[in-house]
Amino acid sequence: MKAFVMKEIGSVGFTEKPVPEPGPFDAVVRTTTALICTSDSHTVQGGIGPRENLTLGHEAVGVVHAVGSEVRHIRPNDRVLAGAITPDWGDAAAQNGFPSQSGGPLGGFKFANSKDGVFAEYFHVNDADANLAVIPDGIPDEWAVYCSDMLSTGFMGAEKGNIPIGGTVAVLAQGPVGLMSTAGAKLRGAGLIIGVESVPARQALARRYGAGEIIDFTSEDVVERVLELTGGEGVDTAIEALGADVTFQTAVKITKPGGTISNVGYFGDGEFVRIPRVEWGVGMADKTIATGLCPGGRLRMERLLRILESGQVDPTPMTTHEFAFDDMEQAFEVSDKKLDDVVKVLIRFG
Amino acid sequence: MKAFVMKEIGSVGFTEKPVPEPGPFDAVVRTTTALICTSDSHTVQGGIGPRENLTLGHEAVGVVHAVGSEVRHIRPNDRVLAGAITPDWGDAAAQNGFPSQSGGPLGGFKFANSKDGVFAEYFHVNDADANLAVIPDGIPDEWAVYCSDMLSTGFMGAEKGNIPIGGTVAVLAQGPVGLMSTAGAKLRGAGLIIGVESVPARQALARRYGAGEIIDFTSEDVVERVLELTGGEGVDTAIEALGADVTFQTAVKITKPGGTISNVGYFGDGEFVRIPRVEWGVGMADKTIATGLCPGGRLRMERLLRILESGQVDPTPMTTHEFAFDDMEQAFEVSDKKLDDVVKVLIRFG
Amino acid sequence: MKAFVMKEIGSVGFTEKPVPEPGPFDAVVRTTTALICTSDSHTVQGGIGPRENLTLGHEAVGVVHAVGSEVRHIRPNDRVLAGAITPDWGDAAAQNGFPSQSGGPLGGFKFANSKDGVFAEYFHVNDADANLAVIPDGIPDEWAVYCSDMLSTGFMGAEKGNIPIGGTVAVLAQGPVGLMSTAGAKLRGAGLIIGVESVPARQALARRYGAGEIIDFTSEDVVERVLELTGGEGVDTAIEALGADVTFQTAVKITKPGGTISNVGYFGDGEFVRIPRVEWGVGMADKTIATGLCPGGRLRMERLLRILESGQVDPTPMTTHEFAFDDMEQAFEVSDKKLDDVVKVLIRFG
Amino acid sequence: MKAFVMKEIGSVGFTEKPVPEPGPFDAVVRTTTALICTSDSHTVQGGIGPRENLTLGHEAVGVVHAVGSEVRHIRPNDRVLAGAITPDWGDAAAQNGFPSQSGGPLGGFKFANSKDGVFAEYFHVNDADANLAVIPDGIPDEWAVYCSDMLSTGFMGAEKGNIPIGGTVAVLAQGPVGLMSTAGAKLRGAGLIIGVESVPARQALARRYGAGEIIDFTSEDVVERVLELTGGEGVDTAIEALGADVTFQTAVKITKPGGTISNVGYFGDGEFVRIPRVEWGVGMADKTIATGLCPGGRLRMERLLRILESGQVDPTPMTTHEFAFDDMEQAFEVSDKKLDDVVKVLIRFG
Repeated sequence: MKAFVMKEIGSVGFTEKPVPEPGPFDAVVRTTTALICTSDSHTVQGGIGPRENLTLGHEAVGVVHAVGSEVRHIRPNDRVLAGAITPDWGDAAAQNGFPSQSGGPLGGFKFANSKDGVFAEYFHVNDADANLAVIPDGIPDEWAVYCSDMLSTGFMGAEKGNIPIGGTVAVLAQGPVGLMSTAGAKLRGAGLIIGVESVPARQALARRYGAGEIIDFTSEDVVERVLELTGGEGVDTAIEALGADVTFQTAVKITKPGGTISNVGYFGDGEFVRIPRVEWGVGMADKTIATGLCPGGRLRMERLLRILESGQVDPTPMTTHEFAFDDMEQAFEVSDKKLDDVVKVLIRFG
Repeated sequence: MKAFVMKEIGSVGFTEKPVPEPGPFDAVVRTTTALICTSDSHTVQGGIGPRENLTLGHEAVGVVHAVGSEVRHIRPNDRVLAGAITPDWGDAAAQNGFPSQSGGPLGGFKFANSKDGVFAEYFHVNDADANLAVIPDGIPDEWAVYCSDMLSTGFMGAEKGNIPIGGTVAVLAQGPVGLMSTAGAKLRGAGLIIGVESVPARQALARRYGAGEIIDFTSEDVVERVLELTGGEGVDTAIEALGADVTFQTAVKITKPGGTISNVGYFGDGEFVRIPRVEWGVGMADKTIATGLCPGGRLRMERLLRILESGQVDPTPMTTHEFAFDDMEQAFEVSDKKLDDVVKVLIRFG
Repeated sequence: MKAFVMKEIGSVGFTEKPVPEPGPFDAVVRTTTALICTSDSHTVQGGIGPRENLTLGHEAVGVVHAVGSEVRHIRPNDRVLAGAITPDWGDAAAQNGFPSQSGGPLGGFKFANSKDGVFAEYFHVNDADANLAVIPDGIPDEWAVYCSDMLSTGFMGAEKGNIPIGGTVAVLAQGPVGLMSTAGAKLRGAGLIIGVESVPARQALARRYGAGEIIDFTSEDVVERVLELTGGEGVDTAIEALGADVTFQTAVKITKPGGTISNVGYFGDGEFVRIPRVEWGVGMADKTIATGLCPGGRLRMERLLRILESGQVDPTPMTTHEFAFDDMEQAFEVSDKKLDDVVKVLIRFG
Repeated sequence: MKAFVMKEIGSVGFTEKPVPEPGPFDAVVRTTTALICTSDSHTVQGGIGPRENLTLGHEAVGVVHAVGSEVRHIRPNDRVLAGAITPDWGDAAAQNGFPSQSGGPLGGFKFANSKDGVFAEYFHVNDADANLAVIPDGIPDEWAVYCSDMLSTGFMGAEKGNIPIGGTVAVLAQGPVGLMSTAGAKLRGAGLIIGVESVPARQALARRYGAGEIIDFTSEDVVERVLELTGGEGVDTAIEALGADVTFQTAVKITKPGGTISNVGYFGDGEFVRIPRVEWGVGMADKTIATGLCPGGRLRMERLLRILESGQVDPTPMTTHEFAFDDMEQAFEVSDKKLDDVVKVLIRFG
């Protein structure tokens, strides 16, 4: 089969690989639709270390091609959604309530990391009954594929942010994950959502997903403006959706005592992420810093699909570009180089 | 001043009373708008014991008439909202996180219980800075008055129900509190909300506030239908918004293992509320039963006002009737006898 | 191999069975030590329905005899502890945080329920890496075997009871699970633990495990006495460790507003478990009712073993009787008929 | 009356002040016993900015001298304990669950900060019913005075650390707060407590309060040793009880994915507190960072007193030095310069 791989650090392209075989509890899925993620670029740049001919991609839906002998719930020809994270549910970290950390830190992140990813004609899913969800008939692939990572990660930012009904929330950066954190904050009943973003197209999407106020950090002081919008108090919850030291600092500064800084950004650079000491209340202001990695699993995916089914969130306006799998090299370049105001690039297979 | 009182058990009417005086931390508010609650009827029927010439009512907004010497935040002429529950915030129960229980079980419930209520030209509010919120300019009184009890109690049902994003919720009975629990479930990101109700007008309101499915218990078996709608599993959260033994039993039966039965109903009759033993998993199915009493306080009210301000919930379709305060006797009869498909009766003062 | 079985409702005895075979993720353990539980008696009396030649018992330790091909962590000859509950960790209920409910209500309860139990020379454990813990060298079998159910269930009562440091706790009934709830309340930092029990030997054990006060319900009014001991307020947490309607009612009555009734009792009789309406605050006193089923899993077992290792809890004083497996019939009678002030009966194999 | 004050930054001494008067809800307490805290030194060094003739001290017990007209619970001649933090309970931050942040970040910290402290013959307590607890007869002043800050702050470190029964905990630095975090970890049921400390006398106290292992950071690599003691996994909870950037970094490194870094240290220096990026899982390892400020209030104090009453924690071994109030200058020097292996200096009045 055809696979789009990271050949080595800095280099991508197509290669031929055998169709994977399922173990007793696994499934193999024929890919129909996928999304490119900025972390695919991080990976290619060496963010997780060197890899050789590793198939890229972790956001995909498809049709079940084959299942192992012990699989009970999932059947061949089911139209299915795989979470970007596919935990080992029996692992101690999963028993402890943190399945994304099963098998070690971030160990649930297998696609395009510890095994081949989804940018191929077929992909392999461990523990199929636990990690795949059947997509209801009314939901097209182009919607469902957003549940894999974008909705799951973005909403997690809101969930870990401990937002009270009517609370105030700032979401720093309105890339696709930030946009879904904005939508997630609305789903948790935030009373005011402040989106921080400078790109007009992303500002417009932020408003669509629930932001009542927008701060353009290129022309306004974010801390000052957030305090102004919250009567000098700061927000209940600040969601860091960029993964930059300076943005993280802003998040701490704009959060009120007793509030939560919820991180969904991937921090790729530097030795440290720095907490501003005084604004953190010299370590005593009850400002909690929460983090996590995209929740996976059948139950999570079913719940996210229900959000699509009820029409509460429509992710498709984030699809700014579509390509056929054969044009993957061009597609990857658009995403990688952030050409043409890209938000998300969708790939169609077969 | 004129006050509408419970003269004795079973009897209501107008009487004259002096305008109340504020203590050092208190305020006196000139009433502008109020709502009648079914618990006003419970009170008149003797639900909280005998009372003599007690002013009724606990849902009101108005304009500050006078404040005590130690009040710092609230000022005369502020347009304000009082929570139905006005806790003593320093009490041990409040320190324990349960301000509605300050001063004893349900002790935060003072209006028309341990002191005069709000159906009068003026009403008294203890600890004004803690228990009153200033109403933003854009929100009319007829909206704001719903925050006092209806939004606060109804949303609490959803909040204590521990609803996951995309989770399944059933709200049993769609009276005004049930309707606001439905709206609250939507605000917490429920994926499917099932409203149980037989009255067509209330079914329509339930759909408006977020119910995706309606079960008419007069023509369908609720347990069977909920299981059908949830793939045989039951709901994550069942909100009991009626206060009836049989409804409570249904709530336990339709909740899945690991789910929550969240009660907002007032149970007025019988020695016991009964848990169905087998469906409760013989006491071992991780089905939690949560309860509470309408949260009050300035912070809560400000957060609820923000929900109105953002337009996420419009409570005014619940106002089926409006009367001038002078017509209070007629107004009370409509609410008390549930005439004319009443949902909520709004009273205008002065 | 020799197995001690429930032949049919009301009848027990030895039978011969083949040594079980492990599936790819499973293990077979050679039993060395087991405990008899009152729920073994419930089962024989028909509490979970009819069974034919079902091996009884769910509390055991042993030595690994064989493992399946996919088992990575557990190895032959490891001395191991199996939780009484052996969940399917990939199941949706486990993903939801309730592994004991995997595969349906109480579905994690497999031994002597949906498959053969541990009263045999060998027993089978599903998902060995997830459900078995290796016993550290310093801990003898006679200690470790108590982790399987007694510590896990008893401590759960304290954990779900949401006990604050210095809080007040009542534990109703001081059978082996109640005693371990008493020990669990102490482990969570309770400031006052009140044990309710009439049997002198159990009262003495309760004091040993942390009860500061004992109430003998045969000579004192429990509600009155608890209120007296708590300044009229009631306890933060009441743990029901009997499974009787009347005890449950007492638990609700003695819990303060904002407190938690935590159930670990198995309710075997009647159509209903009844909540006293008025003392429950007519459904509005913030009294939460929590339940659960013995947590299982390798992580839980390792944590419980650490409690033994540190010497914080010594369960062996609960072992009032010891028998060889060959004398199982006599042993079962002692436990079943509660002869001779029995608390727990320990069985030695081979 | 005589008061021991910070005259200006860097200078302390006695001065005469009038006995304070209580407002309507307040009390004035005649001091009997107090403790010196390292934060008194921070204050004198200018840690909270310049002050002129500010009475120092925030840990004290005494006898009620006078109460205001509205005080109901506390009476003259009651022997009482004041929390170091005396919140405004009606403030929005307190309503939000964070009373220590009432009136602004760290605003509940009033003694020797926004008003005179307790190192005087009399001290003033706002909202006496909410902020004072009556000391039970059996508890001497020299025990009770430790509840004010040491037990309350230290235990908070354990409580916010989310320690599971049988979990693993490291407490970094075994000063008096760290020692009480160690005791707190034991009270929450930790299975293994690792104390990090180099001073032999403090190591011995750490063992006494529950540490099962001690790491001397001057001779061992803390990260390496903690990983060794936890099977390579790291601890469930790391409590930072020093307030140093490098210690904080260690805390992040030794915490396992899904674990909690709980801070009780006061960070006095530098612009930033730095999170090690990679060991923090690039912001995705579910490592939560929690903070807080000493909980105050009558309920908290009553609960802590119950811990003393039950004998679970004896704080008096931490009293290495005792002085009369007249010798306060000498006493302060011992604490300030950490002379003579000081842990805590106790002051006796009158």
